Amino acid sequence: MRVCLGIDPGLARLGWGAVMRIGPDFFPLDYGCIETFPDMTFTQRLMKIYADLQRVITETRPDFAAVERLFFGRNTTTAEYVWQARGVIMLLTAQNSLPVTEPAPNNIKRTVCGNGKANKREVQTTIRDILALDDIPRPDDTADALAAAVAGLSLHEGG
Amino acid sequence: MRVCLGIDPGLARLGWGAVMRIGPDFFPLDYGCIETFPDMTFTQRLMKIYADLQRVITETRPDFAAVERLFFGRNTTTAEYVWQARGVIMLLTAQNSLPVTEPAPNNIKRTVCGNGKANKREVQTTIRDILALDDIPRPDDTADALAAAVAGLSLHEGG
Repeated sequence: MRVCLGIDPGLARLGWGAVMRIGPDFFPLDYGCIETFPDMTFTQRLMKIYADLQRVITETRPDFAAVERLFFGRNTTTAEYVWQARGVIMLLTAQNSLPVTEPAPNNIKRTVCGNGKANKREVQTTIRDILALDDIPRPDDTADALAAAVAGLSLHEGG
Repeated sequence: MRVCLGIDPGLARLGWGAVMRIGPDFFPLDYGCIETFPDMTFTQRLMKIYADLQRVITETRPDFAAVERLFFGRNTTTAEYVWQARGVIMLLTAQNSLPVTEPAPNNIKRTVCGNGKANKREVQTTIRDILALDDIPRPDDTADALAAAVAGLSLHEGG
């Protein structure tokens, strides 16, 4: 039995999902989305991410974390803020002694759907079925985080 | 009297310098460089930056911080690590209730040397003279951090 905390990094919305694996089966322990808002300063947003994600780690007690890799095109203004938020996430994994794996988006899609080019909808419905959920988790960031957790558990048996 | 903590962000070397301003005069309170090493994991490096920089803030008790803006060309592999380290720095300013200013490199050069295109050596010798130091502070990261602090104090009278 192992628990992986999947994280989809972001500044405005950071998706997270804690998934337990027992043999071939995956069970969602808890999942959600940490939100920060434009009326907060950038550093207040980082501080909220730090506090809220620490609470998630404390409550879900994961064995390791899977933090999705980021890829950006030319939109570097957004990129620099999301990278800085990701730095806070990575800091927290170390402060909580969590080993961390960093699967790339196509790696997550390949592991979850068997197809590295699967579209968003396919990933979401597959995650819903694997985790026996009634509905697709909302928002997308939460579904992406659960997919990262399932991929983390599949790719790293030993965590 | 105001104290500004200047920071030159980096993963391997993070320069810092606490400068006090009294009227027209600047006094260096303390300065140095936080180093992390390639034999550490990335997240261990972030954790060391967090712990060491918190110690610096506790000891120097700044009124505000000046964290140099980053600009990267195409070398995005380095950029993503430095951005994440900068996220840890920005988090700490918020956790310590420090207002933060983010001067760009050319703004620092213009404020310190009167020339936004001043070269590294000019900035270093000017900083040495402004702070009445015997030598140019080493490494470059430390000198850059002191320059950021002087610029922060000059640009933001009120902090």
